[in-house]
Order: sequence, then C-alpha cells, then structure tokens
Amino acid sequence: MAEAWEIQIRVAPLKLNKDKTKVKSMAKAADEFTVTPWEVSGNVDYQKLIKQFGTEPLTDDILNRIKKHTKELHFMLRRKVFFSHRDLKWLLDEYEKKNKFFLYTGRGPSGPVHIGHMLPWMLTKWLQDKFDAELWFQFTDDEKFLFRKKQDAQLEDYQKISYENALDVIAVGFDPKKTHFLINSLPEHAGLMHDEAIKIADRITASTVKASFGFEDSYSIGQFFITAIQAVPAILPSVLAGKNIPCLIPLGVDQDPHFRVARDVYPKLGFYKPAILHSKFMTGLLADGKMSASVPQSTIYTTDTPKEVEEKIRKHAFSGGRNSLEEHRRLGGNPDIDVCYQWLQAFFEPDDKKLLKIYNDYKSGRMLTSELKEYTIEKINAFLKEHQKKRELAKKQLNKFIFKP
Amino acid sequence: MAEAWEIQIRVAPLKLNKDKTKVKSMAKAADEFTVTPWEVSGNVDYQKLIKQFGTEPLTDDILNRIKKHTKELHFMLRRKVFFSHRDLKWLLDEYEKKNKFFLYTGRGPSGPVHIGHMLPWMLTKWLQDKFDAELWFQFTDDEKFLFRKKQDAQLEDYQKISYENALDVIAVGFDPKKTHFLINSLPEHAGLMHDEAIKIADRITASTVKASFGFEDSYSIGQFFITAIQAVPAILPSVLAGKNIPCLIPLGVDQDPHFRVARDVYPKLGFYKPAILHSKFMTGLLADGKMSASVPQSTIYTTDTPKEVEEKIRKHAFSGGRNSLEEHRRLGGNPDIDVCYQWLQAFFEPDDKKLLKIYNDYKSGRMLTSELKEYTIEKINAFLKEHQKKRELAKKQLNKFIFKP
Repeated sequence: MAEAWEIQIRVAPLKLNKDKTKVKSMAKAADEFTVTPWEVSGNVDYQKLIKQFGTEPLTDDILNRIKKHTKELHFMLRRKVFFSHRDLKWLLDEYEKKNKFFLYTGRGPSGPVHIGHMLPWMLTKWLQDKFDAELWFQFTDDEKFLFRKKQDAQLEDYQKISYENALDVIAVGFDPKKTHFLINSLPEHAGLMHDEAIKIADRITASTVKASFGFEDSYSIGQFFITAIQAVPAILPSVLAGKNIPCLIPLGVDQDPHFRVARDVYPKLGFYKPAILHSKFMTGLLADGKMSASVPQSTIYTTDTPKEVEEKIRKHAFSGGRNSLEEHRRLGGNPDIDVCYQWLQAFFEPDDKKLLKIYNDYKSGRMLTSELKEYTIEKINAFLKEHQKKRELAKKQLNKFIFKP
Repeated sequence: MAEAWEIQIRVAPLKLNKDKTKVKSMAKAADEFTVTPWEVSGNVDYQKLIKQFGTEPLTDDILNRIKKHTKELHFMLRRKVFFSHRDLKWLLDEYEKKNKFFLYTGRGPSGPVHIGHMLPWMLTKWLQDKFDAELWFQFTDDEKFLFRKKQDAQLEDYQKISYENALDVIAVGFDPKKTHFLINSLPEHAGLMHDEAIKIADRITASTVKASFGFEDSYSIGQFFITAIQAVPAILPSVLAGKNIPCLIPLGVDQDPHFRVARDVYPKLGFYKPAILHSKFMTGLLADGKMSASVPQSTIYTTDTPKEVEEKIRKHAFSGGRNSLEEHRRLGGNPDIDVCYQWLQAFFEPDDKKLLKIYNDYKSGRMLTSELKEYTIEKINAFLKEHQKKRELAKKQLNKFIFKP
C-alpha cells in the first residue's frame, strides 16, 4: 500500500509564480530549493535532497522491519511523509539485540505552534508507544534568540514561548514518566548540557559550520556555537546512565544539517551515532512554501478557533480545482497540487480507504473543491478541539515533563 | 617614589639569542613580541603594548587618587608592576559617589600554579581588603580544555586542576564571605552563566574574534565561543542583584583581548563597561620569556620544596653578574637584567628601602650574584613556607568559596 500513496504525496509545495496562477516548470523549480535549519524555500525535491544530504530513502524493506515490531505502520510511515533516514537499519539491529533506543526531538520556539510543527511529534508519540521509548525533547530558545529577526526581542521572550509551545507538545499525549523536556535557557538544563556541548564544540571547526550552514564571518559566535548545544541530547541519556544507548531522532529534514555535523563527532567521544528519521514539510495554505509561522495566512495555529480555520481554508487554501463548476465536473480536479488534499494525506485523514476515495472523487470531478474544503475544515477542527482541550490540561502537567537533573 | 622604581622595572624579559649569552638589539626585539591570551613571546614593550591595545598608562595621578582611599599604595602599584588600565578614573568617580565596585579575576587551570600566576591575585587581595570589595573568581577549565596541547587530555582533567589551583587562590587570603568561585565546567555554574554568555555571544561576530585573537576557520567553534563565557562574571553580580554594579578586573595584560572584545558588548546589554588593571608578566628564571608552566626549569611552583627552589635559582636564574668575581667587584652587576632582582622587585621584596639598597649594592659590585641569589632563595622559601601552610588549610575551606547559586 505504501507505494500507492507514495506517488501521490507532495508535502512540499510546487513553486508558483508571484500571481499564483501558473506552475513553474518542474525542471527549473527543482534546482531552486534551499533547505537549512534556518531557511526552507523553493520546491523541495526530496529525492534530490536524499542525494544532497547523503541520507538513505525509507524503503519498504525497512518499513516492514519496523512493522514486525509494531504490528501496524503509522500512516505517516506508510505514506512516506517520513521519507528518509540515517542508520535506521543499525537501530533496528540493536533493538533486535535487545538494545533499546531512546527518542530525541525538539522545538525551536520562535512563535506559536502550527500543525506543520506537530507533524514529527505525532510520529514521535507513536514511536514512544510502540517501542516503549524514553523521549528527550529540547526547546532551543537560545538558538531562536540568536537567529531572531526582531533585533529587540530578548532571550526571555523565547523562554516564554518555550513554555507556551511545551503545552502543545504535552497535548500530543507523550508519557510524562518517559518524557523529559530540556529548555536550553533554564540554568539547570544549560548547566547539565554545558560540558558535553564544549566537548562536541571542541571537535567542530568554524570551517565545517560554514560549509554545512552557509555561515560567514559576520555571523555571531553564538550562532557558530549553537549546533553543539543541539547535539547534546542525542548523547545525554548515555552520559547520565554511564553507558552507550542508541538514539533515534525524528525531525523535519531541515534540521538534519545539525546532526550531519554532530554525527561525525559522537564516535570520537565514544558514543553511537544517532539514527535519524526525516519528515517532509507540510505545505502552507498558499502552497508557495513550507508552512511558516511568519506567514500567518499560510498557517493553521494550534490555538485557532473553528471560525479562523474555516476562513483560512475557504479564503487561502490553494486549490487543485477547475475555474468553473462545469469544468470541474467535466475534467476533474488535481489533488496532487491541492493543499487540502495534501493536508488530509499528511496529517488529518489516517484512513487510507477514505483518503483514496477522496483522491478518486476529486480527480474525477465527483467531489467539488468546496466539498473537499468542508471535509478538511471538519477534520482540522475536530483535531483542534481535542488538541485545545488537552493543551488546557497540559498547563497542570508541565512540571512533570520538565527534566529535574 | 613611584617614578624611581618605574624606570628600573623590567618584568618582561630581554630577548636573548639561543645560547643566552648575547642580548639582541632592543630596537629589533621590541618589534617582535606577541601578546594574546594564548601566547606571550618575545620582548614585550609595555609602552608599545599600551598603544597597541589602546589602554591608558597607570599614572601617578591615578595612583594618588587610589591612595586617598587606601592610605598606602601596594608596592605592585608604586612600582608599576601594574602599568596600564581601562576606565579606572571612571571607577574611582563611581566609588567616590558611593557606588562600590566588585572585583573579577580568574585562572586558566592548565597546570600547577607558579608564582607568576599569583602576581595579579596578590594585588586583588589587597584591593578586596582596601575597598571592601566582593570578588568573583572564574576557573576557565573549559577554555583550557579547548586550547589544550595534549589532545588526549579530558575536560575532567582540567576540572581537577581547577580544584588544585583553587587551593592556591584561597591561600592568598581572600575573605571567604566576600569571594565567590565559579568553575566553568560545574553544571550549577555553567547553568548560571549560560544565558548571559548567549547574550554576549549574540553581539560578537566570528570576524571580531578572528581580528582580536588571530583565529582562523580551522579553530573550533568552542574556541570561537569561549570569550563569551569569560565575559560573564563582569556582569553576573549585576544580573543577580538586578542593578548595575561597577566592576574592576585586575589581570595579566595577555588576558586583555577578551575584555577588549566584551567591553563593546556590555553597554548594549545595559551594563557598565568594567574597569581593567593590567599587570606585567613575571620573567621566567631563564629570562627568555614570561614564566611558563610548560617550561618547568623556568618556573617556581607554589608546591616546590626549599631544596627545589634553591636548585632552580642557583642553576637557572639568569644573572646580571659579571664573568668573574674580580670583574664583578670592579665593574658591578646589572640588576636590570637580573632575574632575581626583578623577582624581588615585582613580588618578594615589598620594602622599598631594602630593594634600593640591593639595587645599589649589586650595581656597584658590593653585592655578588651568589649573595643576591641567596637572598632571593630565602625570600621565596619564606613566602612558600607560609603559602604551603595556608594551601594545606585551604582544603577544608574550599567549599565555602564555591558559589552556591
């Protein structure tokens, strides 16, 4: 089944001209994408990215090995929303030798959480449940401060956002007994990570950071250093336990460069290289880039009201429909470029049969754009209603999640 | 009196040829010195250094202003072993407006402490007493790890050296109630400093660090970052108190570049620029460079036995004496290049009258090199006997000095 869905997914946006009426030629757009921890732009060609980053595609063979242990496959795996990995075979080898792994992922708290941010967390929660895994979750508020666009924003502002964002993470349903939040600016967490960050930083040259992230000498020494802090949680549980524990990092593929740099370092310090599982990006509503908190109309925030969701989807969701009802009925729509369809596929419709029916109905013209939008609005609002309830409850749980060294 | 001593002091070494028999021409040697936090070599011309670093000479006017408050002047001030400063006038202005300052200095724990390291601490202790000042003392074990020469040395090795070195600092006699040790690799201290380090690092570009320290892209991102951590204690008491407190940093002039960089940053974060008081270096026994722990025969360690001191001085102390007894009696010695004389002047003979007598006796030939060496050995051993006793007692006091956040 995975293959069937794979050909349909395009979580990355098509690159459109400014008037958003004409799709640029794929051949040209494919050459134009940029993916770094601080910039994602253009039409990301994930197959090219696999080559460019030197990762491995997530094959059915590996998915079947995972399924052996999990009985079922999360739809984000079967549909290859997670499309690429590093060392997952090794991780499964270790797991099969009873050498359990822990999970590490994180959040750069630059602003409110939108559903694009939640995508890797949903799979992380599933992995925690299926593999009974500890999760270390880092809030990189120091990093977001160092890379802020508003020069007058303070580190403390990003710390506050960390706490706000943490509610969304808790609402995903992680097990408080097995989940440990690290907030970089908290003295007890910064102190816990400092020595390992120094040991990692000792092994990374300015030259490597420049080559990996495209930095120049005008970048701050904080920006140069920060990758060392983000690298720490992948070994921290091993340091604390005094033994080497395998680690799996599910993340948006834009964060991979941090670990491409750090993975060379870990073995020099006596640790395993962590395995990594890369997700694609969720398209923004406007279909002209990854969903971005800095483009509000492209984004569904976790705190949006049903009315806001309705309006955003109705007004802004880029559609694969035809210009007229008659034309749509006759020629059918194009689900492959329709943002609503892509969202259902990547996030909101776990049921493969329902999704396939929508695909076929929309493509044939049986389903109208308004109907597809209505369906998506319902799905999103059902999700957000639940999420917002859990998010409210999370306020009382927060303390349980914050790691006590 | 200050002027009289000033012309005589040459705490910096003369540059000698390899066979140590011939003094290079001053004109040439003067152009050849290097002073950075990680390298001091050549014949340091302190007047040139003042221009090169953009500091101000420590004038008699300032010394007299200090004396107004302290009643007497420490011999290291009157003899201009401390020779240069930044913003000392401002600091005294503030003090006279009842805005008290705190002191900040530190130690890079690369190995055992020698008497050259202790020089700035002796004056710092005097300043603490005279101005009733709090002292923050940072052990930069993370920095020493990042700049280690032995690649297999561990951060933990430098942490151990911090504790060893801390005993020497305590033995100086600082007030445990007013003295706060920060050990960078200690989680509670690293955590305490992280956020301020990030804010400072945010304002320093890689470019600035390259220009100030001569780093290249092959340097580690840890090395680039570390100046931000060393900059923190100059503002930490202000951060903790929630109000701006003036700071005075007595240090070896080689450490000035850290603060030259950081001083531009502090006001941008809302803090005062700290005032700085720069000491010259103590000449090594061999008179071919600053005393260095990596050249053991050039060095008197604080843990040396009386016998070791005797041997080192007798065998290695570069002498300003003549080739024969007869010649010495007839032509006199040269105290200005004699290491023993310089040590007495900079450290071991606080009594100006005694020092002047030695100067005159040695120059006239009345005092022989062997007699000068004997006098110096006695002085050093008397100092070390006391120091070693206090150092032993310090083991029980250590906990009182370590800052508890």
